[in-house]
Amino acid sequence: MVTTHLFSLRNLLQEKHWDACIIPTSDPHLSEYLDEHFKFRSFLSGFSGSAGTLVVTLSSSALWTDSRYWEQAQKELEASGITLMKDGESNTPSIDEWLSQQLNPKAQVVVDATLFSQSSFNQLKKDLKEQSLELRSTVDLASQVWLNRPKQRFSSIYEHSVSPRSRKEKIDLVQSKMEQLHVDRLLLTTLDDIAWLTNLRASDIPHNPVFYSYALVSKDGALDLFVNLSSISKEIERSLSMDAIRIHSYESIHDYLKNLNKGSLGFDPNQTNAYLATQVSDRVSVLPISNPVTAFKAIKSDEEITLIRQAMLQDGVALVRFFAWLDQEKNSGELTEVSVAEKLFEYRSALPRFTDISFETIVAFGPNGALPHYRATEKNSSPILKNNFLLIDSGAQFPEGTTDITRTIPVGSITYEMKQDYTAVLRSHIRLAMAKFPLGISSQAIDAIAREPLWRQMSDYGHGTGHGVGFFLNVHEGPQRISYPRIRPGQSATISDATAMQVGMVTSNEPGLYRPSRWGIRIENLVANRLAGSTEFGTFLEFETLTLCPIDLDCVLVEELLKDEIDWINQYHQRVRDSLYSLVQDDPKTSQWLLKKTEPLSH
Amino acid sequence: MVTTHLFSLRNLLQEKHWDACIIPTSDPHLSEYLDEHFKFRSFLSGFSGSAGTLVVTLSSSALWTDSRYWEQAQKELEASGITLMKDGESNTPSIDEWLSQQLNPKAQVVVDATLFSQSSFNQLKKDLKEQSLELRSTVDLASQVWLNRPKQRFSSIYEHSVSPRSRKEKIDLVQSKMEQLHVDRLLLTTLDDIAWLTNLRASDIPHNPVFYSYALVSKDGALDLFVNLSSISKEIERSLSMDAIRIHSYESIHDYLKNLNKGSLGFDPNQTNAYLATQVSDRVSVLPISNPVTAFKAIKSDEEITLIRQAMLQDGVALVRFFAWLDQEKNSGELTEVSVAEKLFEYRSALPRFTDISFETIVAFGPNGALPHYRATEKNSSPILKNNFLLIDSGAQFPEGTTDITRTIPVGSITYEMKQDYTAVLRSHIRLAMAKFPLGISSQAIDAIAREPLWRQMSDYGHGTGHGVGFFLNVHEGPQRISYPRIRPGQSATISDATAMQVGMVTSNEPGLYRPSRWGIRIENLVANRLAGSTEFGTFLEFETLTLCPIDLDCVLVEELLKDEIDWINQYHQRVRDSLYSLVQDDPKTSQWLLKKTEPLSH
Repeated sequence: MVTTHLFSLRNLLQEKHWDACIIPTSDPHLSEYLDEHFKFRSFLSGFSGSAGTLVVTLSSSALWTDSRYWEQAQKELEASGITLMKDGESNTPSIDEWLSQQLNPKAQVVVDATLFSQSSFNQLKKDLKEQSLELRSTVDLASQVWLNRPKQRFSSIYEHSVSPRSRKEKIDLVQSKMEQLHVDRLLLTTLDDIAWLTNLRASDIPHNPVFYSYALVSKDGALDLFVNLSSISKEIERSLSMDAIRIHSYESIHDYLKNLNKGSLGFDPNQTNAYLATQVSDRVSVLPISNPVTAFKAIKSDEEITLIRQAMLQDGVALVRFFAWLDQEKNSGELTEVSVAEKLFEYRSALPRFTDISFETIVAFGPNGALPHYRATEKNSSPILKNNFLLIDSGAQFPEGTTDITRTIPVGSITYEMKQDYTAVLRSHIRLAMAKFPLGISSQAIDAIAREPLWRQMSDYGHGTGHGVGFFLNVHEGPQRISYPRIRPGQSATISDATAMQVGMVTSNEPGLYRPSRWGIRIENLVANRLAGSTEFGTFLEFETLTLCPIDLDCVLVEELLKDEIDWINQYHQRVRDSLYSLVQDDPKTSQWLLKKTEPLSH
Repeated sequence: MVTTHLFSLRNLLQEKHWDACIIPTSDPHLSEYLDEHFKFRSFLSGFSGSAGTLVVTLSSSALWTDSRYWEQAQKELEASGITLMKDGESNTPSIDEWLSQQLNPKAQVVVDATLFSQSSFNQLKKDLKEQSLELRSTVDLASQVWLNRPKQRFSSIYEHSVSPRSRKEKIDLVQSKMEQLHVDRLLLTTLDDIAWLTNLRASDIPHNPVFYSYALVSKDGALDLFVNLSSISKEIERSLSMDAIRIHSYESIHDYLKNLNKGSLGFDPNQTNAYLATQVSDRVSVLPISNPVTAFKAIKSDEEITLIRQAMLQDGVALVRFFAWLDQEKNSGELTEVSVAEKLFEYRSALPRFTDISFETIVAFGPNGALPHYRATEKNSSPILKNNFLLIDSGAQFPEGTTDITRTIPVGSITYEMKQDYTAVLRSHIRLAMAKFPLGISSQAIDAIAREPLWRQMSDYGHGTGHGVGFFLNVHEGPQRISYPRIRPGQSATISDATAMQVGMVTSNEPGLYRPSRWGIRIENLVANRLAGSTEFGTFLEFETLTLCPIDLDCVLVEELLKDEIDWINQYHQRVRDSLYSLVQDDPKTSQWLLKKTEPLSH
């Protein structure tokens, strides 16, 4: 089947006199998660992972993906004729290097320009030029090859009614930033930024409450919103017009940009697709800027944090009901990864304000847990057997906030080595949870605090320690991330002030440990930056742990915990108990489980 | 007096039709420490600190310096008419901003181009241009103003005879790097890099065993060395010629660069002065590169580390004799900061292979210790009184290596708060000393490991945790530094691969805590990167602590130390005792003191 798809693509290449094609994992808004309509790379290659780039010439093809997906890609690419390129390995050629080996000088390499940011398109052009190759651009390549392509889904748009900040207030923020940047108009293309700014939500992309749209903010505070017209009710349109928001059809953004007459237009070249950037009229002066909405969106107000705490209470109720059930059933031998995920969904669905899960639930038993992005499917779901770890990473969307939590629990008996690993991961989690750090420090600079206990035993994990989390928005958002800068020989890394830690940022704390083919461990809570205090040495931040759910202690080697770590666990469990007990009191099984699981550890 | 000097400078400015002048703290080799000959900024301003930039217009003057020097500069600039500009404070204007306020558009700003790197000169030119100001360059500005200017000192050059690596071996390293960079000739201007490469030493700059020189390495491995001819003996010249090193006079570098005929010349624009860069003939193609010697020099070979351990034993003997003496005398009320520094010098001088101190010894009692760069002078030396900390930061040069150590000891009785501070600094020192971390990680990424205990109590220190240290060379050398990247709003920081941690790098571990007007604490040892081991998660490094001298435990709150921290102290003290006891056995006072000070702490 895969071969047929590549065959159609190659026919198109030949017909157009193109020599190669690069297919990224992307949509015109450069979203991280894609709707089926945009899964062209996956359609062509058969590789279903969420990150990867396919490159196809008339006679060869290769797929670049990072270490999280090597095992999966190896399986899924089998017999496809597509070579797996292990991104991040030192001997893996870059795409331009590989193309230069496959093609003759002056060969034409085509991309769909709507799927690349303007910056990455220009970089690619430069890289290919250095290999004497030429970059050509086209639009909507997929439709020319993909028969029966799923239609782009547009869902109903609704108000994020509990948002404590009005869209007017948010647009004011953006407006004052525009004044500072001397920008007459600001073009926004990233879906979560537009949803945040307008206080609107929808479900165009699974688990991300966003809608396909573009927005143009004018310096007078008016906003032109380009959306699917039938997704928006008259009532919302009226309400928007009260806030000087004008509605246009989604597709008309192109004409609108072409017909701009004067003034300056700011957009982020790292976030705006290369095709759209070319649509802008020559009569306006284009200013490349860093999207200010990303920074505003990252900082949650006190009122928003208060709502997020409510979301955590709601999710906490489902979680303790679920884990109490799981503790009773896990040794039955009758559970599978998929059935466990379904049960968790069932408990969450029962919550009155549950809206969606915030990403596909990961339930991974034993060796599956060692693949940080493992997803069980109906076809490929392992049974929950004995004597290994069960890792569950999941989250939910509530109007009050987005959750993301990972717990790892033992099934059957666990070896001493496994307990050592579990204890080290727990220590990493706690070291970071307890940390204080200077206001404004780069989030990247504190990663080592989390990793220290794991490094001491010469173990580590290949992913970041933390990502930003949206407020009833995407479970992954920038700009802060707790992840130390990695530098390759001869290269350098840039630490931007966008990663500076500010009060109100919400981030995950999720160290892990993965022993390939053996087991995986991850412990994740969400944390909010709050003021710790000011001294003669400056102002310091600390984390408020938001997530409310007991952490398994059956696998802990208590003698390896430091005194302050035991204190942290006991205080956390006391808070979990105090917060949730009254909410599950009606259910004796769950409330008894909660009491047992939040018993203090003794020193 | 100061006024007279500025008056002479202003006369010159008027005569030449210049409107302002910028005087940095620098020499033509952009050295960190300066000989008297080059202390023009200090001569003009009266400010004696080791960092600062003076800017003089016809009617105003200002001096920029960082927080380490604010208190000192305030005193020294009193009645000079020079405004202190607190570098690093958010409301302090940059030099170009300030100049634009002082001058009319198109005004001429002059600098001595030999005192700026080519990069910083070009950046300054750009910054001034944005303020509508013009940058002019001159050479040897100081001599035109400074009557009785001290002569540039040239000392005798000698072989670093114990160097385990021959200069041939080192030049080979550079040669292969040049081949990789396609460079026909490499220009070196940094004095420690030239001393390292040629295995030659001298004492042109106090405490830095270097000599004024330039070097040109050719791709065939020949090296042209430009030095003061009378500093070099016939014997050394002969020995150098055996290694294809040709000697030229120091001044002739300019003509030599002018007369180059062809090929490519590589130099580091961040290390080569702007005037020298203009001297290069148009017939050669100039390649801006990163100086490869800096990276080679940072990585000490196993044999070099073995010698450095011997330097530590030698210095350790002087240190324990000194501290045993000090413990007996410190409460006498008769010591002063200067007399203590002299006593330490006396003990070190008695060592047969002692060559020099590696920097001006800091002995700082009580509030003086809160100034991280405090230097007592004959005129200004505090008595050692009671009930405060005495901080001693010092180092020595031996042919076997360079040392740098700080100890803080109590005099009289110490409050609980002081003990809390001392314990937190000790914990920071130990957390870093015990750390393991991935091979190749940026040294900047591990800083948070040291700061975590201090941050937990919302304290901090305003300097880096560690700097590279030379091998019988400068006590400060690059490229690694343990210091997290600081980012200001709207700006970003670059982490270069040059800071990647490699086996054999020698770095200081020196956290501190400074309470202005109250006390200062710093605990410093030198550490070498060594392999910790390899696991499925990669290769890890750890630190070997090189410095051998007891750490005061009288001020420690043992109950605040974690178990592994007590273990580290006990193991370190056991090693100090085992290493030094037999070397001081002849001296009962010292050996008894050593035994007492290395008694294990109990949990």
